[in-house]
Amino acid sequence: MKLYDFDRAPNPRRVRIFLAEKGISVPMVPVDLSRHEHKSPEFTRLNPRQRVPVLELDDGTAISETMAICRYFEALQPEPNLFGRTPAEQGLVEMWQRRVELELLVPIMMVLRHLNPGMAASEVPQVPEWGEANKPKVLAYLEFLDTELAGRAYVAGDRFTVADITALVALDFMRVIRTEVPAKLAHLLRWRDVVSQRPSAGA
Amino acid sequence: MKLYDFDRAPNPRRVRIFLAEKGISVPMVPVDLSRHEHKSPEFTRLNPRQRVPVLELDDGTAISETMAICRYFEALQPEPNLFGRTPAEQGLVEMWQRRVELELLVPIMMVLRHLNPGMAASEVPQVPEWGEANKPKVLAYLEFLDTELAGRAYVAGDRFTVADITALVALDFMRVIRTEVPAKLAHLLRWRDVVSQRPSAGA
Repeated sequence: MKLYDFDRAPNPRRVRIFLAEKGISVPMVPVDLSRHEHKSPEFTRLNPRQRVPVLELDDGTAISETMAICRYFEALQPEPNLFGRTPAEQGLVEMWQRRVELELLVPIMMVLRHLNPGMAASEVPQVPEWGEANKPKVLAYLEFLDTELAGRAYVAGDRFTVADITALVALDFMRVIRTEVPAKLAHLLRWRDVVSQRPSAGA
Repeated sequence: MKLYDFDRAPNPRRVRIFLAEKGISVPMVPVDLSRHEHKSPEFTRLNPRQRVPVLELDDGTAISETMAICRYFEALQPEPNLFGRTPAEQGLVEMWQRRVELELLVPIMMVLRHLNPGMAASEVPQVPEWGEANKPKVLAYLEFLDTELAGRAYVAGDRFTVADITALVALDFMRVIRTEVPAKLAHLLRWRDVVSQRPSAGA
């Protein structure tokens, strides 16, 4: 088994944190996006969408998409559980994972991809107006998450789950768009302090 | 248990097809988006993101996000299985579900939301250039999916899964952006014929 990884991108980090929480060690193969190694014929065979991370199983099966890789490991080794136990908890964890990914991490990426000249080769065409339109979406979502975290310890409930992994990676990735969590969002900052202290956060 | 539904939107249809495949019947509560019923205080308490579908459980728990609702029902009633059985199959089904959703259904929605004047109240701001930029992404993804379906019967493998539900709903929703599947994409059209004949497709 091999995990194709890039240390500076947010999605591979989500998988690394997930594996650290599970206590699973997987051999890593670095793919340098800045050198366009994800566009090589070899890598394109693993993932025709040319993105990291990709998990290659021993039989050659290639699984891409961060959450798909995490689901594979959750099924392989259910504990510690990160996707929910009861049907209702599984639904709520998936709901929060998706909300945080699609309404926070994706808008952060849209700001980066459509406004940073260095992304012009991979985001075709860049639409700067769309990048700008996502800046207030990011801030509005942080405020929403802060009000939610006023009422509970973690993003999806009273314990750490994959939804917290996505949220932490999104917040840390905000440095690339030079945006900080506003100091008034005390619940969000309290939550970030707690999850940042987990050993997995260094992954 | 109640499912808040809107018959003309693609995401509620994904849940209805999923339930039809499972043979599960849930009482439906129509929410008329064209009359802004999703913006009411009552509905906003169920889903602060003001979107359908939402599943309300008997204890008041509200699960939104289409895939989260489907995950709840998969956990509640595992058969017929729609999210994969082995760890590898679970990973591949999630990979394909996400690919089709994020690279086909979402771009179709971007075309609609950023170019249709009727969506101006819900997509703020509309960025017409971003809507236009998504048109070739939709067509390119259809071509990719066609090449994939040359080699297998269904989107994620040799049997029907939730990835086929998302793909069928996306293709049918293309009518709103007045785009047809090009006639040369024979594998994709063959697949669409097969899945359209399932009784669940009428849901």
